[in-house]
Amino acid sequence: NIRNLAMEKVAMTVMFPCKYMSNGCAVNLLHTEKTEHEETCEFRPYCCPCPGASCKWQGSLDQVMPHLMQHHKSITTLQGEDIVFLATDINLPGAVDWVMMQSCFGYNFMLVLEKQEKMDGHQQFYAIVQLIGTRKQAESFIYKLELNGHRRRLTWEATPRSIHDGVQSAISSSDCLVFDTNIARLFAEGGNLGINVTISMC
Amino acid sequence: NIRNLAMEKVAMTVMFPCKYMSNGCAVNLLHTEKTEHEETCEFRPYCCPCPGASCKWQGSLDQVMPHLMQHHKSITTLQGEDIVFLATDINLPGAVDWVMMQSCFGYNFMLVLEKQEKMDGHQQFYAIVQLIGTRKQAESFIYKLELNGHRRRLTWEATPRSIHDGVQSAISSSDCLVFDTNIARLFAEGGNLGINVTISMC
Ligand SMILES: [Zn+2]
Ligand SMILES: [Zn+2]
Ligand SMILES: [Zn+2]
Ligand SMILES: [Zn+2]
Repeated sequence: NIRNLAMEKVAMTVMFPCKYMSNGCAVNLLHTEKTEHEETCEFRPYCCPCPGASCKWQGSLDQVMPHLMQHHKSITTLQGEDIVFLATDINLPGAVDWVMMQSCFGYNFMLVLEKQEKMDGHQQFYAIVQLIGTRKQAESFIYKLELNGHRRRLTWEATPRSIHDGVQSAISSSDCLVFDTNIARLFAEGGNLGINVTISMC
Repeated sequence: NIRNLAMEKVAMTVMFPCKYMSNGCAVNLLHTEKTEHEETCEFRPYCCPCPGASCKWQGSLDQVMPHLMQHHKSITTLQGEDIVFLATDINLPGAVDWVMMQSCFGYNFMLVLEKQEKMDGHQQFYAIVQLIGTRKQAESFIYKLELNGHRRRLTWEATPRSIHDGVQSAISSSDCLVFDTNIARLFAEGGNLGINVTISMC
């Protein structure tokens, strides 16, 4: 009995290295803490932040921008804290993603507008901003998305997602700017929808 | 032939009184203009502005507030340009309407939050403000509805509806603040949702 207690004490204090040790993580953890840490470990490889699952690239944070510039050349980048994200042909049928980059405060943000077709046939739009950076870095920013129309305005303000978390979980829980085709039509002109995007530090 | 032409000319210039003449409308109209005028005629009786079709009351604009005070006593009124519309138990199943009155600038506004159940089972919320007043009076105001949560804010700004038009057509075309249960959950506390309402003159 005395012996078993001693064994248990040893087991409880054994520390394991994070599975991303080889990527640079120096954290040692109790067995019970390991899974939770590894899910949010800053050394976990970053996936390609482009929406849709087509690109399977993974790498470190500092390789993300070079990857985007080499393999996703068609993405436009605008400079400044306050820009207009113009989504063209929003009435195109089916699921569509519009993507652009915004560069300000020395960081790069990816703006995503996603149109989904629901089972009952109606369409839903989701707009969101993610930082090419860590979750901690993302917490120093606020983004604002604004649709402006005739005597009408719809605004969403939130913390950008880190690309480490990605946008899909936020989109599926509606934690972003959500609107339907009626609202898109209220604010669009000639099938194009302009979304004012403002990034600020908080 | 000459005779027919003369007849047509007569028919084209005959003026008819508006069908709400007995309510005070002094307008005379060509047959071709009559329907359009009567739909928006300020002397057309006002219906009860409470959402849902349960109350069949109709009357003139200056009778609307007395009607509400006598027959819809349970509706709370708050004074001021900037108030909180607290909708309790937003998770109650089925279609529900929350209603309150806001009194400012010498006018009365009715705030409506409506929950609808869609065919595929998901629920949608619609929030909107209507003025107890004419369409022309409504055009001098802007209302703002704001949901505030942890590092998140959703805002809708628009011209109030006149109760002469009612809120149902705006709700069915999503020309109001629209959000789903996920978003309601993001902003609610203990099943209650506070909507900041600000009325301003423009
Ligand atoms: Zn780690
Ligand atoms: Zn990629
Ligand atoms: Zn008339
Ligand atoms: Zn009534």
